Amino acid sequence: MTKDTIKPALASGFKDYLPDEMIPRQKMLDTIRAVFERFGYAPLDTPGLEKEEILTGGDPDFKMNIFKARINESGEDMALRFDLTVPLARVMAGNPELKKPFRRYQIGKVWRGERPQAGRYREFVQCDADIVGAKSMLADAEIIAIIYTAMKDLGIKNFEIRINNRKILNNLYAIADFDKEKTNMVLRAMDKKDKQGWQKVEEELKNEGLSDKSISLIKEFTSKSETDDPELNEIASYLDAMDIPRSAWKIDLSVARGLGYYTGTVFETILTDLPSIGSVCSGGRYDGLTARFGGDSLPATGTSFGIDRLYAALSELGLVNATASIAKVIVLNFDEQSLPKCLSVSSSLRNNNISVELYQGSETSLTGQLTYAVKKGFSAAVIIGADEVDKNTVQIKNLKTKEQNEISDSDVITEIYKII
Amino acid sequence: MTKDTIKPALASGFKDYLPDEMIPRQKMLDTIRAVFERFGYAPLDTPGLEKEEILTGGDPDFKMNIFKARINESGEDMALRFDLTVPLARVMAGNPELKKPFRRYQIGKVWRGERPQAGRYREFVQCDADIVGAKSMLADAEIIAIIYTAMKDLGIKNFEIRINNRKILNNLYAIADFDKEKTNMVLRAMDKKDKQGWQKVEEELKNEGLSDKSISLIKEFTSKSETDDPELNEIASYLDAMDIPRSAWKIDLSVARGLGYYTGTVFETILTDLPSIGSVCSGGRYDGLTARFGGDSLPATGTSFGIDRLYAALSELGLVNATASIAKVIVLNFDEQSLPKCLSVSSSLRNNNISVELYQGSETSLTGQLTYAVKKGFSAAVIIGADEVDKNTVQIKNLKTKEQNEISDSDVITEIYKII
Repeated sequence: MTKDTIKPALASGFKDYLPDEMIPRQKMLDTIRAVFERFGYAPLDTPGLEKEEILTGGDPDFKMNIFKARINESGEDMALRFDLTVPLARVMAGNPELKKPFRRYQIGKVWRGERPQAGRYREFVQCDADIVGAKSMLADAEIIAIIYTAMKDLGIKNFEIRINNRKILNNLYAIADFDKEKTNMVLRAMDKKDKQGWQKVEEELKNEGLSDKSISLIKEFTSKSETDDPELNEIASYLDAMDIPRSAWKIDLSVARGLGYYTGTVFETILTDLPSIGSVCSGGRYDGLTARFGGDSLPATGTSFGIDRLYAALSELGLVNATASIAKVIVLNFDEQSLPKCLSVSSSLRNNNISVELYQGSETSLTGQLTYAVKKGFSAAVIIGADEVDKNTVQIKNLKTKEQNEISDSDVITEIYKII
Repeated sequence: MTKDTIKPALASGFKDYLPDEMIPRQKMLDTIRAVFERFGYAPLDTPGLEKEEILTGGDPDFKMNIFKARINESGEDMALRFDLTVPLARVMAGNPELKKPFRRYQIGKVWRGERPQAGRYREFVQCDADIVGAKSMLADAEIIAIIYTAMKDLGIKNFEIRINNRKILNNLYAIADFDKEKTNMVLRAMDKKDKQGWQKVEEELKNEGLSDKSISLIKEFTSKSETDDPELNEIASYLDAMDIPRSAWKIDLSVARGLGYYTGTVFETILTDLPSIGSVCSGGRYDGLTARFGGDSLPATGTSFGIDRLYAALSELGLVNATASIAKVIVLNFDEQSLPKCLSVSSSLRNNNISVELYQGSETSLTGQLTYAVKKGFSAAVIIGADEVDKNTVQIKNLKTKEQNEISDSDVITEIYKII
């Protein structure tokens, strides 16, 4: 056997989420999903694999390193999706009967064949909400309200949603007197200011041949947080009407969002206690979503939560409760004669919507099992021996306070509810 | 532009889940997930892509048609996982520090390059719960209790969990007097009895050269629902102790579960109103899970819910509520002057955990918007015009009863709760 043994290794750039990490991670995803649904966004699911031309747009110079997939040597050219936006565009173009505006969220894995780095993986979860077919700034304001509500519900106190409009930045070359063709480079450089500071941005702009005067004009213009832009002002009025406090967002003319496809509003979300982590949730308007598939071009606006970055941030802020146990209650199991009652009590607790683990490990002593229970982080242990079977009682131990009480069978549910 | 247009098509054998299907499907997954958690099973997530040798076990004759994946021409040989069990085995072998028994569930996509057929896709969701490192039949009984509870929680009234043990069937050749090497063929044939009937099974066995006498002995033996098998009897006693009614399960010596890797208990779940659909939830014990990775071999038992089959069955039984709207309440929006109040009321409803869509479609009239609201299946519409702004009220229309009432602003939440 030994010579045929296979090493249980992951492919390079991939990672497992074991329960201690997956439990709080899933709680985070559930929180965000609940917010999406509260705003009337419905779930959509699309395949992990798409025809390759759908993903590349048929562009022979397509740059992103995607995973190509094949069955045998024949068959279609397929690839793993690298985001959830291109599949959304395909769905909208392929199902013209869908009522507009179409509000959907999608939570799913995407794959990119980038060089693996610390904390960056080749597979990650995207968590997107978009509204398709709504031209009004009301749609952009709704997306920003979703971000605000999600941040609150995740327990994050100090954050700032920074809002800008790409139409303003597209005109920056005239204001700051540089070559129009350099606009994209300038915006990409500006995107680095939170993570690397303005000095780095200035160096980069200088290296790219911008004059000191242009750089100074860029800095001056983009440090403004007021504007006469009608779209931004319209959004501001809607946010006020939705009772979203001004302390949670601001207009910030330096927000660029490097990606080429934004056409209007852009926004990003900074944790003010951890600005160097960069934006944890960004997005914007990208009218022309379905252009590559012909037909009517649809206006769209949306946001994407950076789940891995958010999780790292929540951990650092002490907002993640790492735990290996999903159940709150453990029923110990150290006496074969009492096992039937242990099973019955477990069932009855579960029927009352209480999450219960019945001990099935190798410790046979009460003490050994209690040690396990404390280590794994349960709130309460139910202890049933021969005495308790005889007397129609159980012992309930509060594992935080160490208090232990003998309770009659009929009061078990009530008593457990008090502890958990 | 037209000549570059790409057809918005799915790859062959794949499908989208649009909201009207995805909303009830996700509800079904949430129900099953809640049951897993109530039994103390914790979530695990593993990558969609694995090293190819992990999936094939290094077997050069590996038969399943899997999707191979590559970045560029260089790099590792990778493939898309075809189930969630092999990744579980890799996790257990690679993380020996995980406490046993290890109870995990995993809900995720898997891919198989089979020929596409009606209702069968190349990507599907598996929904598995397994307990690793527990030798006792208590673990098997716990898995069966999970199936029972999930079926109840899904609202399915008539179902039957059929339980057998592969050790009994491995001895069938002696009982029914056929060649031992034909055992696997016989078990695979027996698996077809629910979908195709016993007559078909008999024909197949005859074609494979079994004598009439052997066939008759197989039929006689496997039609028993009583046994002196100690493992099955132990499971039965645990199910009784867990208060799982005898009407929900039976011992059935004809249950084979074709897959080669089962080593003990096997079970399947039949909807008695729809037996021809086959098993909607099956599983069993497969001791030796981590054998291909060397080291200690671990006992394991678990189950997998066939989500697509279950969904089809629930639809046929009328237990699926197809709906295109995730929100229960719509706030209409037909008067620009009233929009700020519409936004404020929407926020306040959402802060009270009520799911709300603010109308953003192209209908500008109240009647047009109400028609949309009824069609999309909302329960209540909130109507705010200039009058209501002046009087600090809103109109609330119950879209089922058509009753409409004017309510003062402070009572909106209470009134909406009454309707939804």
